[in-house]
Amino acid sequence: MDIDLPEVMAEVRAAFERYERALVGNDVAGLDALFWDDARTIRYGSGENLYGIEAIRTFRAARSPVGLERTLDGTVITTYGRDMAVASTLFRRANAPGRVGRQMQTWIRTPDGWKVAAAHVSVIDDPSAP
Amino acid sequence: MDIDLPEVMAEVRAAFERYERALVGNDVAGLDALFWDDARTIRYGSGENLYGIEAIRTFRAARSPVGLERTLDGTVITTYGRDMAVASTLFRRANAPGRVGRQMQTWIRTPDGWKVAAAHVSVIDDPSAP
Repeated sequence: MDIDLPEVMAEVRAAFERYERALVGNDVAGLDALFWDDARTIRYGSGENLYGIEAIRTFRAARSPVGLERTLDGTVITTYGRDMAVASTLFRRANAPGRVGRQMQTWIRTPDGWKVAAAHVSVIDDPSAP
Repeated sequence: MDIDLPEVMAEVRAAFERYERALVGNDVAGLDALFWDDARTIRYGSGENLYGIEAIRTFRAARSPVGLERTLDGTVITTYGRDMAVASTLFRRANAPGRVGRQMQTWIRTPDGWKVAAAHVSVIDDPSAP
């Protein structure tokens, strides 16, 4: 299995960055378009466990658009072959000092482009904080 | 891409179950054998962010072997093609009432068998608790 093929990496990085812009801008349709439209998609969020794209859509529609701005750190994308990738990143928000978020997404290539098939977001006390 | 091919699913399920037995039994060598031996392996744990197999090994060696028993719930394995899979599960422990853990792993097929290339574990207040 070829790891980190440059052309695959470029595609996934573009999708990841599109997702980040949609997230920070609370572009709910943009977020939705980047998740796999399937009952098997899973998203473990910072306070909820969502099974299936319908549960994910319902959650997003009700989400607060306040305080979404964030700084990324430790972002690593790894691609496996031509059709799968994992994107991992830490994030911090000015309104949550001393805390660090972790976002891990598994991306798959579909006929409609790259989609997140599984995601897990959590926030913990920042182990790297002074 | 073929989703959930039965023979692939059977392989990943067996690896997942092997991992669970190693975890509950604090079989550190067994856990290590199921993680991808690579600097690109990432594990976001319940209180730490580990980049690379060496950081993961160091953490595991220092881990407390007490109170590891847990009950799984909402376990879903989805396989993508023949070489990748995601295993997601909730877990609860008797020593953490009102809390629920979430474990999400991306598995890849390697020449040495199926390995976890990325994992994220977090524990939150149980949204399904009464």
